[in-house]
Amino acid sequence: MPQLGLLHGRAWAVLFGQLRRPPGAVCIRAVHSHSQVAEAALATQLKPHQEKSNFIIKTPKGTRDLSPQQMVVREKILDMVVSCFKRHGAKGLDTPAFELKEMLTEKYGEDSGLIYDLKDQGGELLSLRYDLTVPFARYLAMNKVKKMKRYHVGKVWRRESPTIAQGRYREFCQCDFDIAGQFDPMIPDAECLKIVCEILSGLQLGDFLIKMSWKDVRHEMVAKKGLAAEVADRIGDYVQCHGGVSLVKQMFQDPRLSQNKQALEGLGDLKLLFEYLTLFGIAEKISFDLSLARGLDYYTGVIYEAVLLQTPAHAEEELLNVGSVAAGGRYDGLVGMFDPKGHNVPCVGLSIGVERIFSIVEQRMKTFGEKIRTTETQVFVATPQKNFLQERLKLIAELWDAGIKAELMYKNNPKLLTQLHYCENMGIPLVVIIGEQELKEGVIKLRSVASREEVAITRENLVAEIQKRLSES
Amino acid sequence: MPQLGLLHGRAWAVLFGQLRRPPGAVCIRAVHSHSQVAEAALATQLKPHQEKSNFIIKTPKGTRDLSPQQMVVREKILDMVVSCFKRHGAKGLDTPAFELKEMLTEKYGEDSGLIYDLKDQGGELLSLRYDLTVPFARYLAMNKVKKMKRYHVGKVWRRESPTIAQGRYREFCQCDFDIAGQFDPMIPDAECLKIVCEILSGLQLGDFLIKMSWKDVRHEMVAKKGLAAEVADRIGDYVQCHGGVSLVKQMFQDPRLSQNKQALEGLGDLKLLFEYLTLFGIAEKISFDLSLARGLDYYTGVIYEAVLLQTPAHAEEELLNVGSVAAGGRYDGLVGMFDPKGHNVPCVGLSIGVERIFSIVEQRMKTFGEKIRTTETQVFVATPQKNFLQERLKLIAELWDAGIKAELMYKNNPKLLTQLHYCENMGIPLVVIIGEQELKEGVIKLRSVASREEVAITRENLVAEIQKRLSES
Repeated sequence: MPQLGLLHGRAWAVLFGQLRRPPGAVCIRAVHSHSQVAEAALATQLKPHQEKSNFIIKTPKGTRDLSPQQMVVREKILDMVVSCFKRHGAKGLDTPAFELKEMLTEKYGEDSGLIYDLKDQGGELLSLRYDLTVPFARYLAMNKVKKMKRYHVGKVWRRESPTIAQGRYREFCQCDFDIAGQFDPMIPDAECLKIVCEILSGLQLGDFLIKMSWKDVRHEMVAKKGLAAEVADRIGDYVQCHGGVSLVKQMFQDPRLSQNKQALEGLGDLKLLFEYLTLFGIAEKISFDLSLARGLDYYTGVIYEAVLLQTPAHAEEELLNVGSVAAGGRYDGLVGMFDPKGHNVPCVGLSIGVERIFSIVEQRMKTFGEKIRTTETQVFVATPQKNFLQERLKLIAELWDAGIKAELMYKNNPKLLTQLHYCENMGIPLVVIIGEQELKEGVIKLRSVASREEVAITRENLVAEIQKRLSES
Repeated sequence: MPQLGLLHGRAWAVLFGQLRRPPGAVCIRAVHSHSQVAEAALATQLKPHQEKSNFIIKTPKGTRDLSPQQMVVREKILDMVVSCFKRHGAKGLDTPAFELKEMLTEKYGEDSGLIYDLKDQGGELLSLRYDLTVPFARYLAMNKVKKMKRYHVGKVWRRESPTIAQGRYREFCQCDFDIAGQFDPMIPDAECLKIVCEILSGLQLGDFLIKMSWKDVRHEMVAKKGLAAEVADRIGDYVQCHGGVSLVKQMFQDPRLSQNKQALEGLGDLKLLFEYLTLFGIAEKISFDLSLARGLDYYTGVIYEAVLLQTPAHAEEELLNVGSVAAGGRYDGLVGMFDPKGHNVPCVGLSIGVERIFSIVEQRMKTFGEKIRTTETQVFVATPQKNFLQERLKLIAELWDAGIKAELMYKNNPKLLTQLHYCENMGIPLVVIIGEQELKEGVIKLRSVASREEVAITRENLVAEIQKRLSES
């Protein structure tokens, strides 16, 4: 499309010119000068053709187009995720695809090498966003926002070696939900875990488990609560070997812990969290993972990752193809990195790995051979006669103006069979047929594609009848 | 958020490890080694703070964040645009934010300098997409698609000197609708113009005009239909001075044209187009513009641009702030530029300038002081008592699991007044209140924020009653 408005200044000048100026010589002179420009412009038209054979047509490494079929699946998943975020009272937010390079530095540790930088074309040094969390923290600091519950669905870019089989790309979509602000301990943290459970259950991806990083919990106890390392590791013996809801109970039964004032304090937050998770009915979904490491520099508290548990029926290979479908954690220090005075805003959040989920759902649909409608067309405007384009155009405009989703064939004289086959292939439920006879009788034939039944309806009742049929189906 | 699945290989190993391995020494060793890593990792934690004062927190030049209020307006506009595209039977499509640099070369003429290139970090040379049209043509050629009606909503990037006042940015959203394929003349072209009219009318932006480029129409006549330049310019005298629906009639009354076989042929497509536009009831919205120039190299036929006509009440300045809100045209040669054999797929399309429209709607809402709800929360879970967090959490989980949009305060002992004020400020319609008395009686108090009426409802009937109230409102 042309650059919207690049010409609008001139366009307005002429618009006003025409309103003021009477027809005549001025106009004609204008035509000539302009038409010469047009012929000059034409010369460049075909040049690029010479080069087309020099390159292979492809998308950049690690990226892909989404076909109409894929878009339908993608939209279903995103709608489900966003509606859950809204159910928990989140506001929407959008940030630019790129940030000032310096905004991203020192946020991602060893992963910084995976950031896409833009070419220095004069002006600012820019990088494509690597996640939605750092831009969110930048937004909070920039606007001095101290409290916010927001969701953000958007693409992020990472120069990883892509392994497409696992549904991982260099460009991928993230769905983030975060709670920023100073609140009583573990309440927002528990809600984030609840949201992950709601979404993974809602998408019916099978059984799943949320694995919390023991290392980060232990760090909280030792470095922040001053618990002795050996006591923390005694707790560790429990969490790694049991985990889940029974965890806290068992630890409080162990005299080496229950009789240690420090230990009890150290266990306080853990106890709180599992109390809340139990009230939310999701405690048994949570366990600890010794291997889970703080993925990014900015995490300050517990981090967690959700993994799908496949039935033994599936092959080991498929198991490995699943991996993590959601992750999150607490990052109380990130906003302070942006604030000139270092003022912090505690944050906790989650991110849904929709690409991975998308691959799973897509694979499942292929397995079950589900057919997907890629359009929402409700009515097709057909004719059995030649030279009925004008009547079809008049009729379809009436349908469009009534808000009905309608299509016709862009041909002067299409075959009726071709038109009806198109409806069957595209899953269009209704056909309106107009021919000489209908025109004479002032009616339209309304045909159900499924039952092939046809009824004649007066023109003035057509829209109402169609809307009635659509509301019933 | 951590990189989803970066750790999943290890995570799985441990998951399986835990299933096989009995509790014991191995676990404990694991804990220690990991906890040391954790302490080491901590050291880097606070480093970035030292640098925070070195930079100003901002978004890159010509870009912006969208606040929750702005997101609500944006989503309303996009929903309206997309529903129109779907009404006309379009399929969805998505392409990567960046393309191989060579895919974009020789497509944009003098505007090529405005393309954002990515830094060469090894591997392919990449550029951010400049519009959605070239990626669409690349998709068609790459997948050998000969016929497709698709829409695409996405961000594009252009290194223009941004004039924010006009709602123009270096990053902006485009909404494109295109029809690819070989069809009978002017039918898809007319539908594109119909779509622009439906969207601009639907958004209630006031009166508008679609201005077709006379230069491109003339070029069709002279270069392709072989019409003598002076005859074409004679036609030009008409279109520039009258234009619109009466245009063709008048020209056919002019003996210098109606008695010229060439001229009649030259006028053929123009006549067809205006016949179709008349059947669509939009002919009077179309006029010719002498200043409108082919914006980009790839246009081959008529191009058009839609401008809003402000009432004289508005100041000239505001007039200039409006400019073009939609544009489109025919580009029959673009797909061939990608196809190795140069096979062409004729295309015609349109692009809605949502940023411009967004600025107008936003300005209007400010003028009328419309208040926007930034969340969709339906119910707030409150308590008048201390130490009722657990009951509130149990209750809100029930609401979430029933699909009800609910919030609570992340405090152990919030004040009732604070909770009720929050509901009024956020426009939350319902409050459920649980306290000692309610707990004793096994009821919940349901309060309407607007009327401040409260009724006691048994716990088991609560969800049904809330859903009833919400469906009524």
